[in-house]
Formats: sequence, structure tokens, C-alpha cells
Amino acid sequence: TVEKILSKTHKGDIAEVFKYLSKEERTKIFNILYKTNPEKAVEVFKDLDDIVKIEIIRSLHIKDSVDFILKLPTPEIASIIENIPEDVKKAVIENLKGEEKEELKHLLSEGEDKVASIISDSYLAVLDTSTVEDAIQKVKEYNQDIELVYIYVVDEKNKLVGVISLKDLLTYPSNLMIKDIMKRDLITLNIEDTKEEAIENFRRYDLYVLPVVDDEGTLLGVVYIEDILDVMSEKTTEDFFKMAGAKEEELFYADKTFKIAKLRLPWLLIATVGEFITAVIISLFDYTISEFIQVVFFLPMVAALSGNISSQAAIIAARGLRDGRLTENTIDYLFTVFRELKVAVFIGIIIGILVGVVASLWISNHILGIIVAIALFFSIVFAGLIGSLVPFIMYKLEKDPTLATGPLSLTLTDIIGISIYLVVATFFIHYLKL
Amino acid sequence: TVEKILSKTHKGDIAEVFKYLSKEERTKIFNILYKTNPEKAVEVFKDLDDIVKIEIIRSLHIKDSVDFILKLPTPEIASIIENIPEDVKKAVIENLKGEEKEELKHLLSEGEDKVASIISDSYLAVLDTSTVEDAIQKVKEYNQDIELVYIYVVDEKNKLVGVISLKDLLTYPSNLMIKDIMKRDLITLNIEDTKEEAIENFRRYDLYVLPVVDDEGTLLGVVYIEDILDVMSEKTTEDFFKMAGAKEEELFYADKTFKIAKLRLPWLLIATVGEFITAVIISLFDYTISEFIQVVFFLPMVAALSGNISSQAAIIAARGLRDGRLTENTIDYLFTVFRELKVAVFIGIIIGILVGVVASLWISNHILGIIVAIALFFSIVFAGLIGSLVPFIMYKLEKDPTLATGPLSLTLTDIIGISIYLVVATFFIHYLKL
Ligand SMILES: [Mg+2]
Ligand SMILES: [Mg+2]
Ligand SMILES: [Mg+2]
Ligand SMILES: [Mg+2]
Ligand SMILES: [Mg+2]
Ligand SMILES: [Mg+2]
Ligand SMILES: [Mg+2]
Ligand SMILES: [Mg+2]
Ligand SMILES: [Mg+2]
Ligand SMILES: [Mg+2]
Ligand SMILES: [Mg+2]
Ligand SMILES: [Mg+2]
Ligand SMILES: [Mg+2]
Repeated sequence: TVEKILSKTHKGDIAEVFKYLSKEERTKIFNILYKTNPEKAVEVFKDLDDIVKIEIIRSLHIKDSVDFILKLPTPEIASIIENIPEDVKKAVIENLKGEEKEELKHLLSEGEDKVASIISDSYLAVLDTSTVEDAIQKVKEYNQDIELVYIYVVDEKNKLVGVISLKDLLTYPSNLMIKDIMKRDLITLNIEDTKEEAIENFRRYDLYVLPVVDDEGTLLGVVYIEDILDVMSEKTTEDFFKMAGAKEEELFYADKTFKIAKLRLPWLLIATVGEFITAVIISLFDYTISEFIQVVFFLPMVAALSGNISSQAAIIAARGLRDGRLTENTIDYLFTVFRELKVAVFIGIIIGILVGVVASLWISNHILGIIVAIALFFSIVFAGLIGSLVPFIMYKLEKDPTLATGPLSLTLTDIIGISIYLVVATFFIHYLKL
Repeated sequence: TVEKILSKTHKGDIAEVFKYLSKEERTKIFNILYKTNPEKAVEVFKDLDDIVKIEIIRSLHIKDSVDFILKLPTPEIASIIENIPEDVKKAVIENLKGEEKEELKHLLSEGEDKVASIISDSYLAVLDTSTVEDAIQKVKEYNQDIELVYIYVVDEKNKLVGVISLKDLLTYPSNLMIKDIMKRDLITLNIEDTKEEAIENFRRYDLYVLPVVDDEGTLLGVVYIEDILDVMSEKTTEDFFKMAGAKEEELFYADKTFKIAKLRLPWLLIATVGEFITAVIISLFDYTISEFIQVVFFLPMVAALSGNISSQAAIIAARGLRDGRLTENTIDYLFTVFRELKVAVFIGIIIGILVGVVASLWISNHILGIIVAIALFFSIVFAGLIGSLVPFIMYKLEKDPTLATGPLSLTLTDIIGISIYLVVATFFIHYLKL
């Protein structure tokens, strides 16, 4: 029966299978799981796609859905509360404990990017006055799904003063005091740290769990590396959206046309304004254009190739700065720009010759073919230069270099690429007295 | 002194500080570290930026650099060997043990994307015939930097048969047999699994370490979640490079102009061919253009806005499929496409009106303003449709949806956007008998 299969299947596998089921199948199976094993239902729920989460909440009877949501950890509630029916939302908020209500409010206002949104209260702490034997007793009683690795040591005011590992408990004689064997200099996260800083710390110090403290050093909870995996994936998505010139990616998957359009419009409007500049530039060359209308045929090509080259260069630079293939040292970076320039020159020559030859055969005008080739070459080289410089400038201005791979840079490249193309073309057309 | 500071600083912090030092400072400090504490030097080295790794190898005396490289784990050697001086490379390969030489060869040929490249041999395994007491003794003797969490259980043929946790050792009486308390159904990686599959397993099962076995079930090593963090960051970079239409991202940071150009050219050539199609299309409308040259002014705008809209839509779709905000179910997906279409209609109306008004004021021709507005509207709507459909088509063809956010899609959008723009403009120009 379904009940039996569900009880034997790993929660991660149930969540995986849900992806391939229809809406009806999913909600039906989840309802069965919820009735037979509500704790496992909570665990499965956490791993589901956001859309499916909402779908399932909506499929439960109001009373059930409120009961279920109240079983979730507060950060999980925060991630769905804006997308559930109003009456359920109201009932959930009414039934939250005062402290949880505060936490939820904090998460919804500014906490989303903070460590607070991934903090867990499943951890084991012992008083510094306990003995190894006391700690072992506590370990035996500890009963959580997630593997226990570190035991935190606090003083009577719940200040974090040290950490011991399970290995220590196995190694030291049982009558020793914890405070005499604990490690005192430990890596912690502050409750006000961003998730970005948490990733940084996990990557730097190779730990599985980090304790979270407030400014007074009081132990508030822990962050697990498994949640850092999810956060990294989320950050990647954010970075991709920066390339598309859009923020607050989570909203894009809600069913709110106007909200989505409003979020996507700003960068599109900036691009529109930028492209008005290209329109004005083109209008300045109306003589060249009306004399040699073939120049126009290659305008989209100039824009597209400059755009592609500059976005390749910007991605190489921005990702290199992000994941440590490029160093932040200015001299080092200038070498990178120089290399990029050499590459762009090489690519410019190949593409220039290719397009020049095809164009001169097609429009049966060799001089014009040569002009298109030269103009294209210069656009490409400049595009490479802009693409590799802007991310570093962003970085030095303490902005995210990834922004340099987005529409702003592409619009800039369009303007410069098209200007260069038309200036070079006009110059040669007059010079060669076509 | 420097020696003292280095001995007191966490390896992760040393690697971090290296980012901000000049080449000379870095190599000098690393040389000191290597002389005073070679093991820590190895640990620091692993966390350094790739460029810095090569730099440091080159700064050491040949003999030192060979000695140092031989201290590194084989996957780490594989990641640098192609970029170190030939004589060092030769000496390293000569001095590798037969088994390591095999591993290196495998890693260099096809292992780079496989679990083999992140496998570690720091783990603890006990025979299934041992007792809890034997295992505790082994734990006490275990002396590795990284925190011990799981103890693997093997039979006399080194086949993996179970796992126990340190908590089990603290909980069960010391005379029990390991085989009676071990967990038998355990999650494993196969040595032929890809790194992508490893990420998937870590995310799904929330474990800190996964054992790696071959087809016979023999325990070969383990993969640590800390290395999965690095792999995820690497995969993100790969995805970004897919958007730029380039592969083998690691090569972009080597100092090899022609190799880099060769890797970047293929997609640029595809874009060039695609843009020749736009050139031909524009040439078909030369009558419209020469009669109303103002139509040309907005060509780059049409291309840029279609491109931006389609890339926003493609990123939303591709990332949504990747990180679980969108489900893979076709019906579900069609709803997403429909929503995207509504958003594009809305954005098309706003931008169409805006550009139409400004254009008609600027070129003092209201009819032409209206024509530009309508043509732009249709280009935008089609761009939204293409952008949200192509990633799903890719997905169904078992290609990576991220490819849909790259130059292929942008070129397609250019062709379709420009065609729609010129067809609509020509139609209205004739219809309105301008
Ligand atoms: Mg989640
Ligand atoms: Mg989880
Ligand atoms: Mg813990
Ligand atoms: Mg690390
Ligand atoms: Mg966010
Ligand atoms: Mg860096
Ligand atoms: Mg490491
Ligand atoms: Mg590394
Ligand atoms: Mg282990
Ligand atoms: Mg997980
Ligand atoms: Mg690769
Ligand atoms: Mg473009
Ligand atoms: Mg999915």
C-alpha cells in the first residue's frame, strides 16, 4: 500500500519523486503521508519545490493546513506565508507564539538575506561545569534526525564558551571537566551576518555546523552545512537574475503578472533609454546610410557580436573574481585585461575577414566588404575591453561584478559598438570616395 | 615574526589574506610557511586561487616544487599539472607511485567531471567482526584534521557493508559486535558517478560524508561535503559560461591566447551566421528602409529589447527548472509559459507606448511613431514566448536548459524580433500609404 511505501522511502526520495507527479497525485500522496506520519511530512515538505509547497497547502483543509504550517520551523513559514490563502495566513499568525511571531516579522522584513532565516535550534549544548560523563549522558538522550558532530559548551548565562567533539568524549576519561578539555577559540556566526557571509565561513573553515551568537556571545542556534548547499543554489539563481537585470527572483514564480512585470521593467527601461542613444547616433549618420544602405544590413550583427564578446569577457572576469580563479590585485588584473584584448584582436580578425569576404561577395562591392570588416574588427576589440574592465571597476566600487554581465553593460556595448562601426564606415566611405 | 603569525593563523584565513597580497609577498610568505610547516602549506595551497597555485609552484626551486607537488593529493596534482613548467611536470610524473600515476592518468583523461576527482582517503573503516570497543580504540588512534563523523564497516574483502556513527559508539555497550549495531542500508556514490550526481545526493540525503564504492561494492574512499561546496561553485561558473556560449571554463584563466580564442569562437561563429540571416532579412526590406530611413533608427532597440526580454524569460525558466522553483510536469510548465506571455504583453504595451510617443515627437511623424510602437510590441511578446519555451524544449530533449539562455537563443530572438518589426512596419507603411 501507499502508506507502507511512504514509510520505507527516504524523505529525500519522496521529494524527488514528487517532481514527476501530477498536481493531483502529489497532493493526494502528501495528504496520506501527513495523516500517517506528520513528522516525516514536515521533512518532505521542506525539500519540495516552492510551487508545490503552496499547491499542497492549498489542497489541505483549512484546519489541517493551519495545523501543518504551525509544525514548520519559522523560517520555513516565512518562505511560504505570502503565497497562502488569506484566511490560512491569518489563522497561522494568530496561533503563533509571541516569540515566533517576532521572529516571523523579522524574517519577513529584512531577515531573508540573513543567517536568521536558516538558523536551526536542533543542537546539543552542555554547561562548562559538567563532566565528560554528563556530556555522554546528554548525547545518549539526544534524539534528532540530523547527525550529531559538535557539542557546544555554554556558561550559566548561556554564553558560548567552547566546543567539544564526540571524538573528545570517546577519548577523554569520563571524570574530567568539560571546561578543561573544550576548544576555546571557535568560529561563530553572528545573528546579523548575511547568508553570503555564512557561505564564506563554511567554505573557509571546512566545518559541518557553525554556532550562531548575538553581540553578547549568547548561543542562539546553529547553521547546518546542508542548508548552506541550498543557500548556494539560491545565490546562483540570484546571480543569474542579475545578468537578466532583475531582482527578487523568488517573486518570479508567483502568479502575479503585474508584480513580475514591475520587477522586470526597470532594467528594460534603462535598456530602452540606452537604445534611444543608439537611435540618435544612427540618425546622425543618415547620410552614410542613405548613400550606402548596405551598411544597415550589418547593424544587428555589430550589436550582437559586440554584445556576445563583451558578455563572454564580463562573465570570465566576474566569475573569476567570484570563485577565485582571478585575484583581486590590480596589477594581476591588468594582465587579465591585456590577455582579453589579445583574444579580442584575434577573434576580431577572424570574424572581420569572414564577414568582409561574404559581404563583399553578396553585395558585389569589395570596398564596402573591407569597410564592414574593419568596422566590425574595432567594435569587437572595444567590446572585449569593456567586457573585461567593467566587472573589475564594479568590484573596486564594492558592487557585485556580476552586475557587469547584465543589460547595463550590453547596452553600453551596443552604443559603443554601433558608434565605432558607423564612424569607421563613414570615414572609409568618404576617404575611399565611394 | 612571520613564522609565529603563520603558525597561529587558521589555514582558511591564510588563503584568504593571500588574495590581497602582491605576487612577491605571496610567494615569499608561502616559502616561509613551506619551510616551517609543510603540512599546513599543503592545506593552505589547496584553498588558493588557481592562478596563485601555479605562481607559487613556479616560484619554488625545482627540487622544492617537485617535493611539494608530491605531497599533494592526486586530484589536486591533476588540477595543476598542465600549467607547471615541463621539467617539473616530468619529474613529478617520474616520482609518482604506479597506482598514483594510474589515478592521475584517469583524472586527466575523463575523471575531471567524475567523483574520482574529489575522492579522499581520509576516513575510518573497521571490520564487521570487530566489537564496539575495537572501534572506539580505532577512533582514539584516528588522527586527521577533518572531523570524524561516520565509521564505515567493511568485510574481510573490503566490501562496504554498513556504517556506524560516533554516537552509536557512545551509546552501545562496548562488548557488542559492530555488525549487530551497524546501519546496513546506506547511501553510497559509485566511483563512476559524476560530480553533478554527488551534489544531487548530498542535497537529497543531508549527509556530511558519502562513501565511494566500485561496482563490486568495494570501499574506495569518501567524498566530503566541504568539497561539494567547491564543486557547486565550479558548476555555477560552468553554467555562466554556458550563457556566454563557451565551455571548459578553466582554460580561460590560463595564459593561452589562441586556445582561449578557439574555445570562444564556435558560438560567435554561430551568432555570425545567424546575424547574416538578419542582414538578408533587412536587405529584403530595402524599399521600406530607403523610403522611411527612420525605421532603421530603432533596429538595435528591437534587437536589444527582444534579447533582454527573451533572456529574462529564459533565465527564469532555466533556473526555475534547475533549482526546483518550477516543476518538470508539462501542464505545470504551460501555465508558466502563459504567465510569461501575459507579462510580455504588459511590458510590450508599456515600452511600445513609451517608445512610440518619444519617437513620434522626435521624428515629427505620428504615424511612424505608432508603427514603431506596434512593431516593438509584437517583437517583445514573441521574444517572451521564445525565451520561456526554449529552456523547456531543451529540458525535454535532455539538454541543459541553461544553454537556452546563451547566444543561440539570443540570435534566434534577433532574427524573429527584427523580422516581426520589419514586417509589421512595412505592412502599416503600405496600409497607411505614408
Ligand atoms: Mg528550501
Ligand atoms: Mg533539509
Ligand atoms: Mg550539533
Ligand atoms: Mg573549503
Ligand atoms: Mg533573495
Ligand atoms: Mg578571488
Ligand atoms: Mg579543503
Ligand atoms: Mg580547490
Ligand atoms: Mg569519516
Ligand atoms: Mg537537502
Ligand atoms: Mg569543467
Ligand atoms: Mg543584442
Ligand atoms: Mg525541479
